[in-house]
Amino acid sequence: MRAVLLTRHGGPDALEYREDVPDPEPGPGEVRIRVRAAALNNTDLWTREGAYGAPDDPDAVHGWRREAFVFPRIQGADVAGGIDAVGPGVPATRIGERVLVDPMLYDGDERALVDTDYLGSERDGGFAELVTVPAANAHAVRSDLDDAELASLPTAATTAMRMLGRAGLAAGETVLVTGASGGVGSAAVQIAKDRGAVVVAVAGAAKHEAIRALGADVVVDREADLLGALHAAGIDSVDVVADVVAGPSFGALLRALAPLGRYVVAGAIAGPVVETDLRTIYLRQLTVVGSSFGTHADFAAVVDLAARGALRPLVAGRYPLAELGRAQADFVAKGFVGKLVVLP
Amino acid sequence: MRAVLLTRHGGPDALEYREDVPDPEPGPGEVRIRVRAAALNNTDLWTREGAYGAPDDPDAVHGWRREAFVFPRIQGADVAGGIDAVGPGVPATRIGERVLVDPMLYDGDERALVDTDYLGSERDGGFAELVTVPAANAHAVRSDLDDAELASLPTAATTAMRMLGRAGLAAGETVLVTGASGGVGSAAVQIAKDRGAVVVAVAGAAKHEAIRALGADVVVDREADLLGALHAAGIDSVDVVADVVAGPSFGALLRALAPLGRYVVAGAIAGPVVETDLRTIYLRQLTVVGSSFGTHADFAAVVDLAARGALRPLVAGRYPLAELGRAQADFVAKGFVGKLVVLP
Repeated sequence: MRAVLLTRHGGPDALEYREDVPDPEPGPGEVRIRVRAAALNNTDLWTREGAYGAPDDPDAVHGWRREAFVFPRIQGADVAGGIDAVGPGVPATRIGERVLVDPMLYDGDERALVDTDYLGSERDGGFAELVTVPAANAHAVRSDLDDAELASLPTAATTAMRMLGRAGLAAGETVLVTGASGGVGSAAVQIAKDRGAVVVAVAGAAKHEAIRALGADVVVDREADLLGALHAAGIDSVDVVADVVAGPSFGALLRALAPLGRYVVAGAIAGPVVETDLRTIYLRQLTVVGSSFGTHADFAAVVDLAARGALRPLVAGRYPLAELGRAQADFVAKGFVGKLVVLP
Repeated sequence: MRAVLLTRHGGPDALEYREDVPDPEPGPGEVRIRVRAAALNNTDLWTREGAYGAPDDPDAVHGWRREAFVFPRIQGADVAGGIDAVGPGVPATRIGERVLVDPMLYDGDERALVDTDYLGSERDGGFAELVTVPAANAHAVRSDLDDAELASLPTAATTAMRMLGRAGLAAGETVLVTGASGGVGSAAVQIAKDRGAVVVAVAGAAKHEAIRALGADVVVDREADLLGALHAAGIDSVDVVADVVAGPSFGALLRALAPLGRYVVAGAIAGPVVETDLRTIYLRQLTVVGSSFGTHADFAAVVDLAARGALRPLVAGRYPLAELGRAQADFVAKGFVGKLVVLP
């Protein structure tokens, strides 16, 4: 089959497009899916680069588990397609089913999620013509959405769902969403609106109109002085910050929080190593919550939200599989709102 | 009356012992207490020094509210004594009552606690012969404990109670308590044991025996490599860290946490400005919880715990009021386990 192999940690040239990769066979309890769309995520690039560091060495080269990574690996967590074969123990009636894959490959409770296998990282993923997954992770979908739209949902929207869940965002509260034009951010804006929150979104100037169209009540420019911009918009403080940016903005994001406010983080595109004044955290009785991926329940909630139209898939670009490299270059350039998808 | 006045932010010489301070009169809804014991806390020193910084300037000189402080001020949050006068609206039958004061002077819910007036900071406190407080904050006590023992409880033990509550420490979980010989730490060890947790305490070598006597299951030396010492004790990770030390140890404390672990902080005696790798927080899905003071419910729980003997007051030194300066010097030297108390 055709597939893109990650051969080592490194730059774009660590990816190798091949047309002679052996077709995977579904094992016991597994299904094989003909991939019709697979979305890009930041984690693909961070894993390729080995940008996750180590607990005691921020500069160590590692995937998200911060341990030795197995190469070669086919990345691609977010897969939509059709089941074309089943392994032992899976009814053959599933062949032909249109499916969207829950990429969090864990059994058990929330604790198990933290050490989950993640499709395209601990197991070959969807940047290929075929992928195998546990049958329970391949969810039958009936939807008017096309395959690229479906594939845009799993990692980003599920991550956003868990972030807001872990932060306990309630109706009537105000949430500030950073990186609002990205996959996680654009989903967080919509999920927060669906929960009845007031949404303040931070994004680059070129994207403000698109973010407003998602339902954001206030859009703040990412280049602006955050606290000044909030005050100018009549907002003294926010109850929740949902952040995937961090870096130099981290201090101001904490200072934007109301007493008992919650800051939840699931990524740090502007830099993960930050300075913190713990006095701000304890005197204001803030909570800093780490969140990663989403539970199976979060995935189900995302699918439900999309089905009732409260979560709009935002597919900003579609690329042939062989052009994954170009897709990743566009992804890094961030000149779009939503998700980029390859179509094997 | 005799009292110690804090005249400005500064060193020990910012405190002024006087014998000509006007007696305070109880206002409407207030009682006046003849102070028989008042305990020392870190916050007295940090307020005296103005060591709380500002949200956007870690080196700014401020009290805990990080705003202009009103001088002169009589410090001293933790007061035991007897009611000797009542203001309008308070029944005279309360005169003569033996009381312990809840120093968190707020009305309302948890949100109001964050901006509470704190006895000895926003209002004159107990480093004096007489103090006035709202009648509701003066709790009648019947106890075999002496006044110094009672006075050792409010701020420290209530802070510890709220820390463990906010961290959601459950029976069977393992908690690591830093600064275990201090007022907050020694209370946290005992409260955690009462909750059925396994307690790992960090303290200086001279204090290990005393900390074990409080019920700690494992005592780790504060000079030791934390993760190495935990592993040597057969502990892979802990569910909760209750910290009042922070500083250079912060990174190792986070790394000691199990997946979904919670770090709760209520002080940072070794330094509040720390570096954080947010990847450690989000990949392990940790929570960093800020906590300060305790609610009225926490205060009631502390009094209850002490009444049934599950929380032993630890009075390590008693000083005349005029020797508050010497008491503070001993407090800073940390050559004791528990609390220091002045006896006006």
